[in-house]
Amino acid sequence: NPPPLVVAILGNGSKPQVHDHAQRIAQAIQARPDLRLGPIDLSDSTDLSDLKADVALVLGGDGTVLHTSRRMAGHPVPVVGVNMGRLGFLTESTPEDLINRLDDLAARRFRIDHLMTIRGELIPFAGDPKGFERSEVFRGLNDVVIRAAPEFHILEIGLRIDGERVITYRGDGVILATPVGSTAHNLSAGGPILPQDAQMFVVNPICPFTLSQRPLVDAAHKTYELENLTDRAAVAVVDGQRQFPLLKGDRLRVRRDASSLPMVRLPGHSFYRTLRDKLGWGLSPLENLPPHR
Amino acid sequence: NPPPLVVAILGNGSKPQVHDHAQRIAQAIQARPDLRLGPIDLSDSTDLSDLKADVALVLGGDGTVLHTSRRMAGHPVPVVGVNMGRLGFLTESTPEDLINRLDDLAARRFRIDHLMTIRGELIPFAGDPKGFERSEVFRGLNDVVIRAAPEFHILEIGLRIDGERVITYRGDGVILATPVGSTAHNLSAGGPILPQDAQMFVVNPICPFTLSQRPLVDAAHKTYELENLTDRAAVAVVDGQRQFPLLKGDRLRVRRDASSLPMVRLPGHSFYRTLRDKLGWGLSPLENLPPHR
Amino acid sequence: NPPPLVVAILGNGSKPQVHDHAQRIAQAIQARPDLRLGPIDLSDSTDLSDLKADVALVLGGDGTVLHTSRRMAGHPVPVVGVNMGRLGFLTESTPEDLINRLDDLAARRFRIDHLMTIRGELIPFAGDPKGFERSEVFRGLNDVVIRAAPEFHILEIGLRIDGERVITYRGDGVILATPVGSTAHNLSAGGPILPQDAQMFVVNPICPFTLSQRPLVDAAHKTYELENLTDRAAVAVVDGQRQFPLLKGDRLRVRRDASSLPMVRLPGHSFYRTLRDKLGWGLSPLENLPPHR
Amino acid sequence: NPPPLVVAILGNGSKPQVHDHAQRIAQAIQARPDLRLGPIDLSDSTDLSDLKADVALVLGGDGTVLHTSRRMAGHPVPVVGVNMGRLGFLTESTPEDLINRLDDLAARRFRIDHLMTIRGELIPFAGDPKGFERSEVFRGLNDVVIRAAPEFHILEIGLRIDGERVITYRGDGVILATPVGSTAHNLSAGGPILPQDAQMFVVNPICPFTLSQRPLVDAAHKTYELENLTDRAAVAVVDGQRQFPLLKGDRLRVRRDASSLPMVRLPGHSFYRTLRDKLGWGLSPLENLPPHR
Repeated sequence: NPPPLVVAILGNGSKPQVHDHAQRIAQAIQARPDLRLGPIDLSDSTDLSDLKADVALVLGGDGTVLHTSRRMAGHPVPVVGVNMGRLGFLTESTPEDLINRLDDLAARRFRIDHLMTIRGELIPFAGDPKGFERSEVFRGLNDVVIRAAPEFHILEIGLRIDGERVITYRGDGVILATPVGSTAHNLSAGGPILPQDAQMFVVNPICPFTLSQRPLVDAAHKTYELENLTDRAAVAVVDGQRQFPLLKGDRLRVRRDASSLPMVRLPGHSFYRTLRDKLGWGLSPLENLPPHR
Repeated sequence: NPPPLVVAILGNGSKPQVHDHAQRIAQAIQARPDLRLGPIDLSDSTDLSDLKADVALVLGGDGTVLHTSRRMAGHPVPVVGVNMGRLGFLTESTPEDLINRLDDLAARRFRIDHLMTIRGELIPFAGDPKGFERSEVFRGLNDVVIRAAPEFHILEIGLRIDGERVITYRGDGVILATPVGSTAHNLSAGGPILPQDAQMFVVNPICPFTLSQRPLVDAAHKTYELENLTDRAAVAVVDGQRQFPLLKGDRLRVRRDASSLPMVRLPGHSFYRTLRDKLGWGLSPLENLPPHR
Repeated sequence: NPPPLVVAILGNGSKPQVHDHAQRIAQAIQARPDLRLGPIDLSDSTDLSDLKADVALVLGGDGTVLHTSRRMAGHPVPVVGVNMGRLGFLTESTPEDLINRLDDLAARRFRIDHLMTIRGELIPFAGDPKGFERSEVFRGLNDVVIRAAPEFHILEIGLRIDGERVITYRGDGVILATPVGSTAHNLSAGGPILPQDAQMFVVNPICPFTLSQRPLVDAAHKTYELENLTDRAAVAVVDGQRQFPLLKGDRLRVRRDASSLPMVRLPGHSFYRTLRDKLGWGLSPLENLPPHR
Repeated sequence: NPPPLVVAILGNGSKPQVHDHAQRIAQAIQARPDLRLGPIDLSDSTDLSDLKADVALVLGGDGTVLHTSRRMAGHPVPVVGVNMGRLGFLTESTPEDLINRLDDLAARRFRIDHLMTIRGELIPFAGDPKGFERSEVFRGLNDVVIRAAPEFHILEIGLRIDGERVITYRGDGVILATPVGSTAHNLSAGGPILPQDAQMFVVNPICPFTLSQRPLVDAAHKTYELENLTDRAAVAVVDGQRQFPLLKGDRLRVRRDASSLPMVRLPGHSFYRTLRDKLGWGLSPLENLPPHR
């Protein structure tokens, strides 16, 4: 027999109900000989890069999973997302579901999807006297977005893929998204849905001037470079959570990260069912008929 | 005192429940001294151009209202649309609602919206020996659509407004819609929502090649001409209900019709509430959150 | 005989060639008995609300016309936009064109289009101790846009039209555009093209979460109210030129302004020709064929 | 030394200039000891499944390459597309270019991209007495499209991927496209651009009722099944060139074909340059500025 699976409980402790659910789940785990309770950490800033667990339950929304995965840095533990409100793409279980599925967890009846993540760096413009301090390295699970701020103005952003000039965007900004991020900001901006296990990026302009500029999908093994060609500053936003300035001539160089986010997929997991639920596709045809056709 | 309002009952008699509802409503009308029951006609092809009534209840879906208004031709009677299933843009009452609102009807507590309709003619290509027979005049409430059929091929369609050349579309087809039709096919094709009482047309290409071709709104008092420039035949479809061929060089000339469709609006009517219901806008923000942003 | 038309010359004097062109045009005007040269003002901040002229030539781009019309405040003089680079929607003449068209101008062979403008006010949230100072009144010709800044986050914005609740947007922001503004930011965000003389507004969400939220057109005589329902601050941007914060509970109340921008339309003016040129519709079909269909 | 490369010349002989270009190219090939002229066939229906050549020049447009590759069936010869008019995605050389590049061809300085193709079958509805005769097997390079014909009506089409129910589309139709086809009909219908060497399909509804239905990308190793759930007939169109009816309950089962289309890529080939040219991205930013922003 394999040793009992060690299960950590993490989450967004700023929501009061998280503590209750964490406790209930912890008790259910402790009641079983075939699971072992690992660390419980509902804070939001502990370093999780050395978490001692086989699996981490993350209580919160998709944003909590994004934030937690960021804190695990290069040593990610497979995650089960547990949502107390509306289910999400990364948080497909309710606390009750999860408690009912502990048998599957204990028996290791699950597969692990390795979700692609982004590794990017900010390369300050040539000759920037503060270039050294301004250098940035970042990781993301969803996307990196370039947009104008603090003042609104039109951005001009050049895209190169593997060093080849692809396009110069002019407009409100650009989204570079992973497959997981394809159903977030990218979808609102008219981009396509990619399956979570794809090894692709999507590059999608936000409100482009040139009306023929459309979302572009390309392979994840390539290197993507976005350069701010605008005379004024822009900002880069990673996963909607982290933001830093992008001056004229600054470049973002983005690649697939060597480490991915391992997600535990219990039996019955279905990306398309989640999609139908979240996008209202599952309504009966009579229920979402558009007007009088 | 004004004489009692005369109320006709029309509808799509091919649906069995329509007969029951018509009977219940007829009884409720007959029970009141301040309303008088007019003709009941649940057939689908009688000539309604001489209907003796002040108001016509139309039982069915939005398609039934379209079809009925077509049969009233130039002498439309104000319509109350009554839907037995899902409410529509032209059928905003249930039978129960309506019976509860007979007081408002009898007291003439309603306003009438005059919905713009289309009058079009097919002008056969110059020199067509069968031109005379092929001439067509049509009326529509929603839209006229040009598309390829029976064989699929790419259409080239020229648009003139008041004689001025505006654009040549290339693609799957073109929609010319009224405000009422703006929430039908036009909306699916990426077009804007116009308020039902606007005096505007929207012209919207279907899957255009030239990616910068976008929906165009212009005034209802102008004359719109769409010409089939393709070497092969296309078809014109009016309100999704009537279809005829459009040969190379044939033109559709479309204007606002002199007669409009009068719709009875009982107190509390709200276009935007219907829109929220039908397009799922009314969901609480938490309920239609897209994934993990 | 009417007195000679008085022609002022305004423009964006920060571009060096503007001075040369202004001088050439001034000489051509002075050479004619049937025109009289009015003030020449190439500065960018003079008060123009008391400009002594029948017609004002504005040298620059569309942005210069926007800015100049703002400075004319409530006493606009009919404008001829003169562009030295690429023609625009508000700047349809080159300097050469214009000099060749002085006959038309002198003979008053032109019509004047009154372009609808926006009058808006910022209504600070109820109970704001600084509410009085924060009040703002603004005028615009293109649009007012609400967007997140300085930090990026998701906005929740409620729209009321004539006091009726219409929709709650969630996403990157909202654009409220005039017909002239419909071909600017609104077009990039997927909105429709309105003719410049329409009396309509278009309200268009930027990257909406709820994928069924689409551009909405409604009448210009109504009052539009946009409320920031987000917990964090947003900004309002008028014509891409003026920006101010919008705190939680703040509202923008927008109406058609009593005064419009009068644009001189010389014979041969065509909105659709400009549209074809600027959006690349005028290319021969063979030249903008999309790939292999 | 390797033996001289054998070069066949194929093409669309119904265009007169094709014959002249074919002759010029044939002479240039014959003049070289390091190339050998293979068959010349400008007919449009010969069986090409046993073509004796190392490389086939195909003179015509992208449609000619599609048609020719179909005729090569299971034994495709690497193709160089040669276009006499506007360059295409599959026809990136002019005759002059090609003659200048014979050195590269002879020295075998090229790589071969294996473009994914579709293999589909029509599975008639269960119990169809004519099911056996109606069975169809088809191959495609671009796409298979389901649409209403000959009468226009709304389609309801179910999609399964690897047997899992994904979505029911309601609207004008559905496109299932390869990466090469992504820049054709799919792009007009709002779909994303996939790189030609991707191993993915894109499924894209045409004018969907449910406004949240968006283009979906998924892996090429999966099996896609589209079922006509409508009460009336639809048609399937393959590569815009072949069309057959799809009755209620009929299914299209589509997979990546075992054989791909080998395309010769001479040095300097760039998908993105072709994209920029064809979609007008390559214009200088000043040249395709949208109006007055």
